[in-house]
Amino acid sequence: MERLKCKKLKNKVMTPEQAAMLFKDDMIVGTSGFTPSGYPKAVPLALAQRAKNGESIGLTLITGASVGPELDGALTEANIIKRRYPYQTTAEMRNAINNNKVQYSDMHLSHTAQWVKYGFLGKVDIALIEAVSITEEGYIVPSTSIGNSNVFVEMADKIIIEINSSQPIELEGIHDIYDIKNPPNRDIIPLINPDDRIGVPYIKCDLDKISAIVFTDIKDKTRAVAPVDEVSKKMAQNLIQFLEKEVEEKRLPINLLPLQSGVGSVANAILSGLENSKFKDLVVYSEVIQDSVIDLIKSGKVKLASGTSITISPDRLDEFYKDINYYKNKLILRPQEISNSPEVARRLGVIAINTAIEVDIYGNVNSTNIMGSRIMNGIGGSGDFARNGYITIFTTESIAKGGDISSIVPMVSHHDHTEHDVMVIVTEQGVADLRGLSPKERARCIIENCAHPDYKEELIDYLNRAQEGKYKHTPHILSEALSWHDRFLRTGTMKKGKLEEAK
Amino acid sequence: MERLKCKKLKNKVMTPEQAAMLFKDDMIVGTSGFTPSGYPKAVPLALAQRAKNGESIGLTLITGASVGPELDGALTEANIIKRRYPYQTTAEMRNAINNNKVQYSDMHLSHTAQWVKYGFLGKVDIALIEAVSITEEGYIVPSTSIGNSNVFVEMADKIIIEINSSQPIELEGIHDIYDIKNPPNRDIIPLINPDDRIGVPYIKCDLDKISAIVFTDIKDKTRAVAPVDEVSKKMAQNLIQFLEKEVEEKRLPINLLPLQSGVGSVANAILSGLENSKFKDLVVYSEVIQDSVIDLIKSGKVKLASGTSITISPDRLDEFYKDINYYKNKLILRPQEISNSPEVARRLGVIAINTAIEVDIYGNVNSTNIMGSRIMNGIGGSGDFARNGYITIFTTESIAKGGDISSIVPMVSHHDHTEHDVMVIVTEQGVADLRGLSPKERARCIIENCAHPDYKEELIDYLNRAQEGKYKHTPHILSEALSWHDRFLRTGTMKKGKLEEAK
Repeated sequence: MERLKCKKLKNKVMTPEQAAMLFKDDMIVGTSGFTPSGYPKAVPLALAQRAKNGESIGLTLITGASVGPELDGALTEANIIKRRYPYQTTAEMRNAINNNKVQYSDMHLSHTAQWVKYGFLGKVDIALIEAVSITEEGYIVPSTSIGNSNVFVEMADKIIIEINSSQPIELEGIHDIYDIKNPPNRDIIPLINPDDRIGVPYIKCDLDKISAIVFTDIKDKTRAVAPVDEVSKKMAQNLIQFLEKEVEEKRLPINLLPLQSGVGSVANAILSGLENSKFKDLVVYSEVIQDSVIDLIKSGKVKLASGTSITISPDRLDEFYKDINYYKNKLILRPQEISNSPEVARRLGVIAINTAIEVDIYGNVNSTNIMGSRIMNGIGGSGDFARNGYITIFTTESIAKGGDISSIVPMVSHHDHTEHDVMVIVTEQGVADLRGLSPKERARCIIENCAHPDYKEELIDYLNRAQEGKYKHTPHILSEALSWHDRFLRTGTMKKGKLEEAK
Repeated sequence: MERLKCKKLKNKVMTPEQAAMLFKDDMIVGTSGFTPSGYPKAVPLALAQRAKNGESIGLTLITGASVGPELDGALTEANIIKRRYPYQTTAEMRNAINNNKVQYSDMHLSHTAQWVKYGFLGKVDIALIEAVSITEEGYIVPSTSIGNSNVFVEMADKIIIEINSSQPIELEGIHDIYDIKNPPNRDIIPLINPDDRIGVPYIKCDLDKISAIVFTDIKDKTRAVAPVDEVSKKMAQNLIQFLEKEVEEKRLPINLLPLQSGVGSVANAILSGLENSKFKDLVVYSEVIQDSVIDLIKSGKVKLASGTSITISPDRLDEFYKDINYYKNKLILRPQEISNSPEVARRLGVIAINTAIEVDIYGNVNSTNIMGSRIMNGIGGSGDFARNGYITIFTTESIAKGGDISSIVPMVSHHDHTEHDVMVIVTEQGVADLRGLSPKERARCIIENCAHPDYKEELIDYLNRAQEGKYKHTPHILSEALSWHDRFLRTGTMKKGKLEEAK
């Protein structure tokens, strides 16, 4: 109870089960949570129980980004979520989407807040927010992420707060909440340096809208990151060599520019590689602060990290919380409308490093749909940063599935980032610097530097034959452009089988 | 000579032929010009003559956007341009690119300036800029466009100025030049209202770099716009009905938000439709100010238009120049780094209306490459606005080539705007509002509302069969997804022939 400092709100305290009764069929619910950190847990579990007990409840769920098993997992299993925005990663939700049980719209993470505020996603009924505490004034101090929480609190009819005592109280002060008005009254975002604090450390709210306060101590179910393997190490080396050359040629300052990195094991491994670089006094301006960034802060390589979420792998969470006071003044959490703002990303000139599922010879990137149809996670913030980065880099291993998939293909089977937004491709094979090149030059550059040797010859063959066509700007053979994927779907490999060779 | 007010520069005056001698093989040249307005004419013609006389000169040409026949036309015919950024429209240049004679990189127009300043496109040797005058201080007053002129003047070793007396001296004062620094020193762009003037009405420059001043009176070769036809009228009506509904439902203010519109006959016709709407006191914040905007200013519908270029069709140019003082205080020209700035577009909340070549059932848009390979013009500023618009609308007639092409296809043959960036599709058939919909819902909505009746059935058939596949998020049959284009390339029509039906 000491984390609830506002006396007026004491009478709103109830059990998760009681709070779960506030949800009605067909409601739109906005929750905290980003890269499974800081998402609500106790109330969703109690809500799932209602469905298990036979009630029929269908909801639209809007979050910051990915959330953990107590939310996306439990509510999907209970058949509660009918519609989902803007990003997800749990196996349950992914399967439900790919089986057409959930209607999913995969959005740029900088868009969600304004779409909610413009009314494009309907009226938000309930904001369900995890907090470390509530101030004397009744304002909400978020926990390990902010995401779109400030916007849901502003827009929702009712607010439910989960005060989570497993989240260290020391998180108070780490947040910097700045609200953006709607056009035509929208103003400048006054963030000029990555360490600027432009707002307040809590989410202001209308106390009358707070309908329930629940206490819980369920820990964030963050994801473990895989140990750094040889392939990731090689990719990190290639990336660092590229950045070093940019500094040498005076296209980048000696201490680089603010780094943005996607999330996950590969992204983590690549960022970890900076430990062995000569760069110092680095700054991170990204969505997610994950293990590697914490390590780089500890070693002194990174002096500041700004994001909208801290996600530390489970076996390192206790250690991080123990040392939180050391990290605290080097970390800032912002609403994702600010962390992912095109305005800010372009002003700061971020170095945008994101992961691709596959890349085509002309530099288009697929970040979301395997073989064109199967959603993996979502585009996340990669587009916010890629379009507005100083340098925009996509990384991918050159092959997948033990070599049965080439990550470099004639045409990607789904487009998330187009030729206009992709400057550099890094694989374990090497680096393709595409800046200023025409499509055909890009193709030669990518095949030569990034493709796996097993697929190079066939890629060159495709390009050569395509160039024999009438129109030579972006040469394609449309009857063949997606045949590698089709072959994989039919045979389990992109490699030509004997049958095909015989044709 | 009275337009050259700086005494110190009088000795730089020379003939176009003399100025043309400053160009050497392999140089990178940045010129003024946007949507063929305000581009240099006399010096390029003289330069083309050098090549015709047998000299071998190869150049990289970077402009604001499209330029007229004296530049892209004459230099392409003379085989001088080897590499081209970021946009083009002349038949000569388009053919040269599609025949692999010119290496063309088709860029977001907001990117070009910073790529030049970051050194990503190499060192600019010569800036060749059309001006209406040079001030006493030696500063350049641009003519009918600004484009990237300020950046080329800043970055080039040498500056050549064409003072064009066919451009009215009254253009003085219409420009608002604001320079953006490179990260990490980049600041806020202090433009909060569309009519804010944030800079100075001339391009400052280092006088020592001015190597030649040439006088000319060759008029802008702007393009004629086609008369408004029935199909365009229907598209305009559909668009206006959509906007009216948005106002009714309070998702847009009564006088809308700043309008951005692509360029060309269809865009012009659609904007003209606003004449018959109930909207008033409209504001345009766009790249290009074309005929329809001038008409809307005249009729009082539009109170202010901001762009980087004024392009009036040839038969209306004299009339516009005669009344220029009437229009002048209602027009502002800005560098394209400002007119197309994501920061400003998102802040103002522009209504982005751009033209698509084709759209697929999931809402992806092809703006550039016909049948996947043949470049038309380029992406231009459509991405700058579409990604950052308050509402993002793409328009296209539902068919092309007399019905042999469906503009709604299973999968676009080239992706410029992805599903994440397209909110509304307008054809003469109707309006598809895709906001908040999952891919499958988008498909039904587009087919139902926007596809031509001749192709509806086959589109639904494709979607239904695709949904029978294993992964149902973005259902595709990859072996068929591009078959409509392939059929067109083989048979001249996307319609199934008897041969195919017999299969």
